[in-house]
Amino acid sequence: MILEFSTYPIGSGESLSEAVADVVDIVEQSGLPHQTHAMGTVVEGEWDELMDLVKQCHFALRKKHARVATRIAIDDRAGAKNRLTGKLDSIEKRLGRKIRR
Amino acid sequence: MILEFSTYPIGSGESLSEAVADVVDIVEQSGLPHQTHAMGTVVEGEWDELMDLVKQCHFALRKKHARVATRIAIDDRAGAKNRLTGKLDSIEKRLGRKIRR
Amino acid sequence: MILEFSTYPIGSGESLSEAVADVVDIVEQSGLPHQTHAMGTVVEGEWDELMDLVKQCHFALRKKHARVATRIAIDDRAGAKNRLTGKLDSIEKRLGRKIRR
Amino acid sequence: MILEFSTYPIGSGESLSEAVADVVDIVEQSGLPHQTHAMGTVVEGEWDELMDLVKQCHFALRKKHARVATRIAIDDRAGAKNRLTGKLDSIEKRLGRKIRR
Repeated sequence: MILEFSTYPIGSGESLSEAVADVVDIVEQSGLPHQTHAMGTVVEGEWDELMDLVKQCHFALRKKHARVATRIAIDDRAGAKNRLTGKLDSIEKRLGRKIRR
Repeated sequence: MILEFSTYPIGSGESLSEAVADVVDIVEQSGLPHQTHAMGTVVEGEWDELMDLVKQCHFALRKKHARVATRIAIDDRAGAKNRLTGKLDSIEKRLGRKIRR
Repeated sequence: MILEFSTYPIGSGESLSEAVADVVDIVEQSGLPHQTHAMGTVVEGEWDELMDLVKQCHFALRKKHARVATRIAIDDRAGAKNRLTGKLDSIEKRLGRKIRR
Repeated sequence: MILEFSTYPIGSGESLSEAVADVVDIVEQSGLPHQTHAMGTVVEGEWDELMDLVKQCHFALRKKHARVATRIAIDDRAGAKNRLTGKLDSIEKRLGRKIRR
């Protein structure tokens, strides 16, 4: 399944880049296929490994900050694999051209 | 912490009320403080018990449907308790009147 | 259609109750059917009036704060009316009992 | 400001690639800076032009489908420009290495 998430402190200053850098560092260490975009990170895997990863990221921030907001979106489709790029490949196939990804 | 979530099948017909009824039934059995609104359910508890609950709901639907979308929002604030109603009490105190909840 | 939204400042202190009170005040003045829960507000109406309302709330906060996050979820179903309570009535009918709402 | 969104039909079959291709096509025609990932599209611009775009995408699907779900997340920071890549550049600067984007 594919999981997209973002996690950041509320009330600890406007800049979130330090927090997001911490999160990306943890995601990279997980070894799971992932991609970071301007509003969050998309990761592919099974429920437990994905949720363990989000939990680790959430609490890495909560150790440093008194309030943390975490958002998660899951798309779980039977038999779907390599969806991180596969979903976009399907779009390009339909459109008959490359898209900005 | 407070967790809001919604989980529903994609591509299994327009009506989602059977799926949502299944989910609410599972939430009620958890014994956790909760409230269901027109776009999801809000539950209060600790990370693991909340995530176990969402997982149970998600897979109850995935057993019946080939594609399921699940959305989660978490608000985790140090020392915050009874936030399901407490957050709204704070708003009413500020406004000096009851709000529609 | 039904729209759920939340809007709050990032980096202006941990407490969000003043900002949320401002938002609820604006929603009440819109006259649209609505309900506020611990993680956001649900409103029913047509696209333009709903989006005008969210815009008004978003910029009421941006006038006071340098960074604002706004989240919106829309459920738009042909011919659906009075869904703020109607969706929950359907669940209760299926379950054969009242739910916590 | 940066806006991330996804919009898709509920109950019109499991595959969403035709709907997403329609949406990406409309986004490309807007001429706004954008990037599509596996869970949605990120676009940069001002409130009105961004919301006009999301509305156009939403109703392109509603013309074809009886129920459509649309999700939007906005990050609006005073004076912030070129954030589509700028936010990720900041993360890379902090980490001292390229990230998967």
